[in-house]
Amino acid sequence: MAEAVYDAYREEVLGRANVADTEELVEFYKDLESQHAGALWTVANKIEPWEPVTESQPVLWQFDRLREHVLRALELVSPEQAGRRVVYLANPGRRDVTAAVGWLYTGLQVMGPGELASSHRHSASALRFIMEGSGAFTNVDGHKMTLGRNDFVLTPNGTWHEHGVAEDGTVCIWQDGLDIPLMNALEANFYEVHPDLQQAVSFPIDDSTATWGNPALRPAGETWSKRYSPLLKYEWEPTYEALLKYARVTDGSPYDGIHMDYVNPFTGGAPMQTMGASMQLLRPGEHTRAHREVGSFVYQCAKGSGHSIIGGRRFDWKERDIFVVPSWMWHEHVNGSDSEDACLFSFHDLPTMRTLGLYRAEGLAENGGFQPVIS
Amino acid sequence: MAEAVYDAYREEVLGRANVADTEELVEFYKDLESQHAGALWTVANKIEPWEPVTESQPVLWQFDRLREHVLRALELVSPEQAGRRVVYLANPGRRDVTAAVGWLYTGLQVMGPGELASSHRHSASALRFIMEGSGAFTNVDGHKMTLGRNDFVLTPNGTWHEHGVAEDGTVCIWQDGLDIPLMNALEANFYEVHPDLQQAVSFPIDDSTATWGNPALRPAGETWSKRYSPLLKYEWEPTYEALLKYARVTDGSPYDGIHMDYVNPFTGGAPMQTMGASMQLLRPGEHTRAHREVGSFVYQCAKGSGHSIIGGRRFDWKERDIFVVPSWMWHEHVNGSDSEDACLFSFHDLPTMRTLGLYRAEGLAENGGFQPVIS
Amino acid sequence: MAEAVYDAYREEVLGRANVADTEELVEFYKDLESQHAGALWTVANKIEPWEPVTESQPVLWQFDRLREHVLRALELVSPEQAGRRVVYLANPGRRDVTAAVGWLYTGLQVMGPGELASSHRHSASALRFIMEGSGAFTNVDGHKMTLGRNDFVLTPNGTWHEHGVAEDGTVCIWQDGLDIPLMNALEANFYEVHPDLQQAVSFPIDDSTATWGNPALRPAGETWSKRYSPLLKYEWEPTYEALLKYARVTDGSPYDGIHMDYVNPFTGGAPMQTMGASMQLLRPGEHTRAHREVGSFVYQCAKGSGHSIIGGRRFDWKERDIFVVPSWMWHEHVNGSDSEDACLFSFHDLPTMRTLGLYRAEGLAENGGFQPVIS
Amino acid sequence: MAEAVYDAYREEVLGRANVADTEELVEFYKDLESQHAGALWTVANKIEPWEPVTESQPVLWQFDRLREHVLRALELVSPEQAGRRVVYLANPGRRDVTAAVGWLYTGLQVMGPGELASSHRHSASALRFIMEGSGAFTNVDGHKMTLGRNDFVLTPNGTWHEHGVAEDGTVCIWQDGLDIPLMNALEANFYEVHPDLQQAVSFPIDDSTATWGNPALRPAGETWSKRYSPLLKYEWEPTYEALLKYARVTDGSPYDGIHMDYVNPFTGGAPMQTMGASMQLLRPGEHTRAHREVGSFVYQCAKGSGHSIIGGRRFDWKERDIFVVPSWMWHEHVNGSDSEDACLFSFHDLPTMRTLGLYRAEGLAENGGFQPVIS
Repeated sequence: MAEAVYDAYREEVLGRANVADTEELVEFYKDLESQHAGALWTVANKIEPWEPVTESQPVLWQFDRLREHVLRALELVSPEQAGRRVVYLANPGRRDVTAAVGWLYTGLQVMGPGELASSHRHSASALRFIMEGSGAFTNVDGHKMTLGRNDFVLTPNGTWHEHGVAEDGTVCIWQDGLDIPLMNALEANFYEVHPDLQQAVSFPIDDSTATWGNPALRPAGETWSKRYSPLLKYEWEPTYEALLKYARVTDGSPYDGIHMDYVNPFTGGAPMQTMGASMQLLRPGEHTRAHREVGSFVYQCAKGSGHSIIGGRRFDWKERDIFVVPSWMWHEHVNGSDSEDACLFSFHDLPTMRTLGLYRAEGLAENGGFQPVIS
Repeated sequence: MAEAVYDAYREEVLGRANVADTEELVEFYKDLESQHAGALWTVANKIEPWEPVTESQPVLWQFDRLREHVLRALELVSPEQAGRRVVYLANPGRRDVTAAVGWLYTGLQVMGPGELASSHRHSASALRFIMEGSGAFTNVDGHKMTLGRNDFVLTPNGTWHEHGVAEDGTVCIWQDGLDIPLMNALEANFYEVHPDLQQAVSFPIDDSTATWGNPALRPAGETWSKRYSPLLKYEWEPTYEALLKYARVTDGSPYDGIHMDYVNPFTGGAPMQTMGASMQLLRPGEHTRAHREVGSFVYQCAKGSGHSIIGGRRFDWKERDIFVVPSWMWHEHVNGSDSEDACLFSFHDLPTMRTLGLYRAEGLAENGGFQPVIS
Repeated sequence: MAEAVYDAYREEVLGRANVADTEELVEFYKDLESQHAGALWTVANKIEPWEPVTESQPVLWQFDRLREHVLRALELVSPEQAGRRVVYLANPGRRDVTAAVGWLYTGLQVMGPGELASSHRHSASALRFIMEGSGAFTNVDGHKMTLGRNDFVLTPNGTWHEHGVAEDGTVCIWQDGLDIPLMNALEANFYEVHPDLQQAVSFPIDDSTATWGNPALRPAGETWSKRYSPLLKYEWEPTYEALLKYARVTDGSPYDGIHMDYVNPFTGGAPMQTMGASMQLLRPGEHTRAHREVGSFVYQCAKGSGHSIIGGRRFDWKERDIFVVPSWMWHEHVNGSDSEDACLFSFHDLPTMRTLGLYRAEGLAENGGFQPVIS
Repeated sequence: MAEAVYDAYREEVLGRANVADTEELVEFYKDLESQHAGALWTVANKIEPWEPVTESQPVLWQFDRLREHVLRALELVSPEQAGRRVVYLANPGRRDVTAAVGWLYTGLQVMGPGELASSHRHSASALRFIMEGSGAFTNVDGHKMTLGRNDFVLTPNGTWHEHGVAEDGTVCIWQDGLDIPLMNALEANFYEVHPDLQQAVSFPIDDSTATWGNPALRPAGETWSKRYSPLLKYEWEPTYEALLKYARVTDGSPYDGIHMDYVNPFTGGAPMQTMGASMQLLRPGEHTRAHREVGSFVYQCAKGSGHSIIGGRRFDWKERDIFVVPSWMWHEHVNGSDSEDACLFSFHDLPTMRTLGLYRAEGLAENGGFQPVIS
């Protein structure tokens, strides 16, 4: 039988733990274990790494390949059976927590004309990014919204929500993003089914966007006590226009091109407390420099095509492809086209990182800011 | 010689001062006076009124009549002589502090093609509302902005600013709004002329609007440490569109119709610390109910025509007319047209009132919410 | 009859108004006047001074001389007649607004054993500083507090409050500080007498101090939604101890010695939205350097003796004397004793200045930081 | 070979996933797996539980038994070898992440006279609670603090810190609390050794407490831009006094007796962004009612003795014993003594829960609020 080893993490650096196993020490360690205890120096270098160590891998999911499975699900299960008819994306390093990257869940939901899912609410914050089809809608706490291509929609922590497609619509697919894994990790996840299974529509259709989706204007004297955005749907058209407008007056970020965050218009801050989202435009031929950030990212290509280099590996993407960037991993983006711009939607956990004081970012200094690509 | 009277403010109400003058008391009061002191009960009911007492009157200035004087000023003085070539509006009750109402100053500034005023900065916060002409521009801390009809522009406390009209422009008139009187009252007013008389243009033209004037979007990760809005120009087109959009999903305010505040997109709050501004749309035939607020208001009709009833008196207005509503005075607005909407721009000191915890509002309960009009 | 003069404020400085009266201009000005208007350049240099111009004078009130008048009031009027039996202090430059300095009111209130004033509330924020006597108490929204020498007490904007002295107490004198003048200037002042004239005691005596007056500790999970401090009484003993403790680890402020602000323990900020208060200790022999600040100050000597030089004039003070420092006026303090420390209590409008973005301070550079004294 | 089972989490509840495995479906699921994907309905009921599911167990560590091991460590390793000489406590359900409960690490550190650990900093926030010995000190960013029994000390995220014991001190033991596991889970953990191994003492000894540890007072006009408390040491004497003082005016919490949070005096909020701490006093004979909270807690008995019922199991504690309460687990506390009060120190992740909008609490309704105890 193999002897237990306690000195696997030794480092020959002043200020770091560096204790070799001895018979006496090993006995001491075993004694401690029997009392639900241990010697810090046997694990200190492991639990206090020099910099973040991610369990996630960079992954890209080609939509072409996923789409057939998603549509297949339409035949295989009903929303009544499934709750929600979703194909989720699982990071090889995070399958145990059903995460696409870090503590972020994502999946592709599909609904056919006339279908309606039941209403529920949970501690997890959720968002949608609309991929294809017409007639989809979401009802969040009585605010019914029509959903169009590349619209970004919130269903925040604690809100009743349900989705459906109108009778005269087509099959619709959208991407769901949630922080379910984080809620479970934090042991804070509650779930409720709506007592009536469906909720009423209590406000004019799309009232949230008409009320709060205006540039630097808000209903006079209006207050809002919730900790998430009163604006629930961010439409694609004005978002794309904003990127073009902003592009005319900025050089853009060296790391992300023309890059804007979706914000809560009531506070100017993140739309939800735990997750944020952004849209970025890469100009024709743009190749950004590499940087890394504390935080996990799920991207979807909303327009055009190109590739990203993540952790030294190249991932080619085109419209609707989804890929992830793990925490503290170098990444850079390339728009391969000479004539067309490319847009990347992303959602991430930066609001969590920022609110806990953990956000950091670093640009790559070597090699002109470009990673060597692992072939 | 008339005897001094100290009991002029007596009230026969329990809890209020009610002390009749006696010879002994009057002697006591005079003694106190000689020591830079006094008896509170001789003034308590005056300085603690049951509700706010304004020194301002409601006034309306017809632009038709002002305009000729404003244009006359163009001939009479140069910007070099005048500093700024402005006709200010003086409330009959506030001429001593050069205020249009309460502690708010307003005036009409005029500049001809090729003119350029010198750059300065001050503790007062300032704003502009563009009335007529083409080619006007403002430069605020290096951000040069082109100014169009009904645009709303900030030149906040402490920013270098200067105005001009392009060589190929026309005569331009705009309304200035400042809190100069408040700054003087608070004994906090500083003034500086720019060392070079003019400042450089340091950013792309209109960069502030392109960067910050987008709906619920902001440059990713951007921060802003100033206590005023990074958005300096709020254009008329998207503002009017926003009012129409919002009108489709709201009943509007019973007191103000379709009513939106211009906000600082970085915080969602007031654009400057001491002054705010709003645009409101009165639907064809709309007659709002009366209310009163702690705060002073300067209005300009930006579109259409109608009238307002202020403190029981009727004031008829059409495009470009300016009128004021004093603090805690009943006011209601009427769009007289059956077919056209009417828009009122206003600026006010509500940010000051709110930040000091003093804002209050009250709707008129009697008579269906409408004031009897004094004929 | 004298001709009107409009060019009294001309300045020969580029960027400032410099227009000489002509017959044509004077006629123009009179035309404007008849329309409730004026030419800005005739007043611009007056209303936009290079730096703040105060209307207040520095004044010192010797308590020895005031005290006899205050006690005399005890005989002359009852609280029922007077509302409150107070001798107020009036700045020669601010008698019109009943202010001791700037927009701050102060007065000395006196009550005898068994007396009880009626309960009221108002928009003005109020504070007390206890000067002499035993048995005084205040009830603020049901929180009854016993008042001891040099205690600092709040009765914030909107709270019901009333004062009295226990039957077995002695004649008590305290200083009241209020922002009544500011509330009137802002046309925001409301006043109400309690419907029952007295309010109930709803909490254990001195509960506010026992609950919130502890060092960096607060009731677990407690929330507080009011915009003023939940701590209503700041006692002298721990305040003086804190000054001594702090003195052991700091050099102190060059301008104010050992200088601490009373804060709202729930936010760490000012105890009320419009007024703040401080206590400072001048070490034996300490002579601070001169500085000036945007803001008005009312001081009371709480311990020891010394003098201050304000606007170049010397004011000698000893325990209980009151003096004022106007906005943007140079001031420096001197503890004349070689062996005893001296303490100055002060209240001020810095929270108003700070929240409106107007606070500035400047140290005197010349003459080693000391003002020449006008003899 | 056993067939894969995908329908293990089915629930017969409307709105929940309820899809039985079929051959066709299982094939579909396997297809998805091969593409780093899955069907949400196979895991939905697992990852969206009705309420939080904790991986931690309630555990109590008797100090009597730990102490000998801790002292033994003193002989076995030097601080130079070990980095820090600490025995950590490991929850049986969280040994993989080296946590005592949830994402909280705790350990007992021991140092002998004249020992000095090297200086380092990390993303993890840390705190200390002093258990025994004299002469211990901590240096945090140049602020050296002397440590006494039951003092609570911060070494926040990003601060350089090091510990030691004076030459003339005794063997000292204290409890360390850190959120190392959370930092690793969030993939946000950075670690640095001080370039000089030791840092200088840059301020007077114990200056932080003398400056910021005063009741509702702070250095006048002082600002603080860090996101943690400027007060680094909270001493036991004033804390215990505060509890006694507060006890005189409150009934206390039904769940926690006399219960106070340590706060950041600059903001009134939590001392660090991710972890908070509290001290509570249980009055003689007090038996609190059961409640449960979203958040994990590590307790140490600071005074007296008693027991807690956690998740239906009884844990007896006396001074220095340590125990944990997992998230959303019922717990109630009992002071067994008729005459002595008992004090429990605790630290927890409530600041994380609150800032992310996840905090909830619930009192036990049944059985008078008392849990049945599992024998």
